[in-house]
Amino acid sequence: MGTSMPGTTRDDATAEVTCGPIEGSSKVYLDVDGMAVPQRRVHLTNGEHLDLYDTSGPYTDSSATIDLEKGLAKTRDSWERPAPVPVGGHDAATQLAWARAGIVTPEMRYIAAREGVDAELVRSEVAAGRAVIPVNHRHPESEPMIIGKAFAVKVNANIGNSAVTSSIAEEVEKMVWATRWGADTIMDLSTGKDIHLTREWILRNSPVPVGTVPIYQALEKVNGDPTRLTWEIYRDTVIEQAEQGVDYMTVHAGVLLRYVPLTAKRVTGIVSRGGSIMAAWCLAHHTESFLYTHFDELCEIFARYDITFSLGDGLRPGSIADANDEAQFAELRTLGELTKIAKSHGVQVMIEGPGHVPMHKIAENVRLEEELCEEAPFYTLGPLATDIAPAYDHITSAIGAAMIAQAGTAMLCYVTPKEHLGLPNRDDVKVGVITYKIAAHSADLAKGHPRAQERDDALSKARFEFRWTDQFNLALDPDTAREYHDETMPAEPAKTAHFCSMCGPKFCSMRISADVRTYAQENGLVTQEDIDARLAQDMAAKSAEFAAAGNQVYLPISEAAAP
Amino acid sequence: MGTSMPGTTRDDATAEVTCGPIEGSSKVYLDVDGMAVPQRRVHLTNGEHLDLYDTSGPYTDSSATIDLEKGLAKTRDSWERPAPVPVGGHDAATQLAWARAGIVTPEMRYIAAREGVDAELVRSEVAAGRAVIPVNHRHPESEPMIIGKAFAVKVNANIGNSAVTSSIAEEVEKMVWATRWGADTIMDLSTGKDIHLTREWILRNSPVPVGTVPIYQALEKVNGDPTRLTWEIYRDTVIEQAEQGVDYMTVHAGVLLRYVPLTAKRVTGIVSRGGSIMAAWCLAHHTESFLYTHFDELCEIFARYDITFSLGDGLRPGSIADANDEAQFAELRTLGELTKIAKSHGVQVMIEGPGHVPMHKIAENVRLEEELCEEAPFYTLGPLATDIAPAYDHITSAIGAAMIAQAGTAMLCYVTPKEHLGLPNRDDVKVGVITYKIAAHSADLAKGHPRAQERDDALSKARFEFRWTDQFNLALDPDTAREYHDETMPAEPAKTAHFCSMCGPKFCSMRISADVRTYAQENGLVTQEDIDARLAQDMAAKSAEFAAAGNQVYLPISEAAAP
Repeated sequence: MGTSMPGTTRDDATAEVTCGPIEGSSKVYLDVDGMAVPQRRVHLTNGEHLDLYDTSGPYTDSSATIDLEKGLAKTRDSWERPAPVPVGGHDAATQLAWARAGIVTPEMRYIAAREGVDAELVRSEVAAGRAVIPVNHRHPESEPMIIGKAFAVKVNANIGNSAVTSSIAEEVEKMVWATRWGADTIMDLSTGKDIHLTREWILRNSPVPVGTVPIYQALEKVNGDPTRLTWEIYRDTVIEQAEQGVDYMTVHAGVLLRYVPLTAKRVTGIVSRGGSIMAAWCLAHHTESFLYTHFDELCEIFARYDITFSLGDGLRPGSIADANDEAQFAELRTLGELTKIAKSHGVQVMIEGPGHVPMHKIAENVRLEEELCEEAPFYTLGPLATDIAPAYDHITSAIGAAMIAQAGTAMLCYVTPKEHLGLPNRDDVKVGVITYKIAAHSADLAKGHPRAQERDDALSKARFEFRWTDQFNLALDPDTAREYHDETMPAEPAKTAHFCSMCGPKFCSMRISADVRTYAQENGLVTQEDIDARLAQDMAAKSAEFAAAGNQVYLPISEAAAP
Repeated sequence: MGTSMPGTTRDDATAEVTCGPIEGSSKVYLDVDGMAVPQRRVHLTNGEHLDLYDTSGPYTDSSATIDLEKGLAKTRDSWERPAPVPVGGHDAATQLAWARAGIVTPEMRYIAAREGVDAELVRSEVAAGRAVIPVNHRHPESEPMIIGKAFAVKVNANIGNSAVTSSIAEEVEKMVWATRWGADTIMDLSTGKDIHLTREWILRNSPVPVGTVPIYQALEKVNGDPTRLTWEIYRDTVIEQAEQGVDYMTVHAGVLLRYVPLTAKRVTGIVSRGGSIMAAWCLAHHTESFLYTHFDELCEIFARYDITFSLGDGLRPGSIADANDEAQFAELRTLGELTKIAKSHGVQVMIEGPGHVPMHKIAENVRLEEELCEEAPFYTLGPLATDIAPAYDHITSAIGAAMIAQAGTAMLCYVTPKEHLGLPNRDDVKVGVITYKIAAHSADLAKGHPRAQERDDALSKARFEFRWTDQFNLALDPDTAREYHDETMPAEPAKTAHFCSMCGPKFCSMRISADVRTYAQENGLVTQEDIDARLAQDMAAKSAEFAAAGNQVYLPISEAAAP
């Protein structure tokens, strides 16, 4: 299924986006004071169901009408917005300002229902600066979500065209596609032509917060020469994007002139695009970064729209060799200073993190970020735990991502198989998102996040009971799970078969195990005490009894479970 | 390239195996007292090279002649074997017995050269039982390797046909294919027909140690009815496989009758095939496992051939919910007892581990295994850090594998994308091996293993210097890295282009960064002190100087680096 995206003047702008529910699921809504909070309901063959956090927006609601030209409904415009409250010397209308004033906003209540927590927890974490709710007033189409270590770990997917390839239509579909598979936010990192128009299409149709790196567009305006950048060009670009509704912006304001030489001896220098642009500017002008010197002014703009800072790690390490070095941590200290300034304006802040870090150096990144940046939510790219596997960097980085999330990172920026090699296509986006949902969910489990294990248990139970269809539908990617199963066992009866092709019918441990359980339960052998007592009885008699029952180790479960 | 595999009587047994070097590499040999120790040499475009540990055997040696019917050269037969030495009440000719007697065997010297360590370290770790060298006297074709926490983390790949699918020819190719990409050992888990013949083909052509689970073949001999298994049938199967040259065998001797009921309340019961077979046998006969009651006799057979025990975790958890439970750890305590018995016979031992374990419960598995089993090498399957991603379980498990290896696991059993769904094909085998090489290498980095970071640094340096071909050839999978790059940048000049399609030419951070480095170096701005001093100078003058040089931020490196 799909819906067309006409209406631009470009030849390649007619395209389809993916609509319809994920296999085996349907959209349901919780009613929270009149707000409709979406959930994905997975319907099981045993009559049960499991409701899951849902990032996919109306695209997976079979009753919704999608019109890309019109955009999604501007739902949040109808919610009651609290009046601005005093912050520092002025008033601010931001989630942070309201949270500090003790006000629970509609967004906070919406989020509490999504996360299954109390709204007061949402408010207090935002007030403490430990969580952010990226919601530009001008992006009323978005479904509010929260980024903070007390909540489920989130995943961001980067999309965006470059000068070399990709069209607007492809990018809108990537956004829909990424959120379908679980992306909690998306960043539009377009660097080619039509940046403004691409972003407009994405924002008007995005159910999740949208982030950008404004310096990319600013650089386009000076034809790619970073030395020609000015504060004014940058500021106007930020306002242009703010007006469109961008929810959070990466700002590399911690790349100071004096830090640049610290990168000269690195194996891989500066690998952040924004970082390298600002380093070039600082060197060219031999003056301090305009992002740093104009930071207060930037805060004022951000406060006006309630845009969240994502303070960029322009000096993040680009290789194992450069991890946790002086340049990286010098910048982090500056980000800590900037965090305090932003919060004094009532502006929400998160901090971007590395990059490339070997496993034994990961925890230190979180510890230091929390210490220097007042526990502002950490938003990390990976990190890659090794550099030797280009084409598999979604995996090298998922290892680091799971570990850094367990240590406290609030949002993970995905990495696709194309990292370091090329621009991700639609398949790469899906693999990247699924891989990062794995990392995020693994961390949720390890952190004991409420609800996390429910899904594991439901899937494992389906697996043990040979409910193959349920196993597929409970998976992060039902389509691929089913496809892999069908490669060797395509017939429909195999969906309920009590074995899979890995072991064949006679060797299936799950099947034997189910029979063992049935036998043990029928014979009351369910505790250590039980079996110890039983062992004192006549073992030969038990053996004969088992034999008399026909040694039916391979009975189908339905029969074995019968009395 | 390939070489045919004729000579069996089965229709489907004619096949090819993959020969020839990995792209950009050639085989070199170290001469160690007349023994030729293989290494893979990666040739770089800058005239340098990097030598890597090589598991692939003669198949990647372009000067070797491969004849599958004849098998590989029986090289170890020509090495001097020390005389048996006393262990307990008898003599034993095993690596463990020799190590304890202070004898450094040819295998130990060979391994020391491969690992880049002193032979005495190899001997002492084997003597302490902290490392094993799986080398059946009757598998002289194998290239000795070591499994122990003091050495590089190893990866095992499972192959083997089942009753449902796959042929002998496919399995031999899977073995060659898996070792090509870095599998350190392979396990033949065949459960269908022709088990003996399949194994013979694999052993005679395998350059790496081969492991098996003898209970699978024993069960075939009683037509799949576990209640009809006997010690005698099992023993004869072990001897049959020992004579063929199997290097290590999984034995589920820790599944005791009294532990079986501990699994009855689990979400996923018993998920080990061997474990479920033995549990069924114990329940049927209501007597203790014959593997446990005949363990001394088994040790005598193993000692005769120098077969290594891989004590199986038949009660390993099969889901997040069941991790670290009573059944799992009860069995582990028994494996500890059996470890002592095996070592008293001079038999080498490793311990198999879980399975499915959330991240926060991983370290405890290693700690307890080391405590209970005298630090015998731990050999783990994954573990999967979550259950919700069938079709991506190579990734869910790579997260757990990297972490458990960092904590001290010596060998990782790979998991493929088909885990829980079907039998892996050739592509799945490769993805599984590469994924696990990532986990193993990430752990080597974190453990500070000598040589590990050399490869990361070489690849990162190539990346920073835009030596694309070197970046590909240094990767775990050069072919896929090149393929992904070429999808968006197919033209040959792009291999040396100073940007990739991700950012396009103007935005490449690596390129800008290289220019920044050049500038900083030329101006002597390489330390904090330097830049502080410089800042005291006239900033305007520096700016003018940079402008006078044409603001050449995008100069190609070759030009920028010129004087």
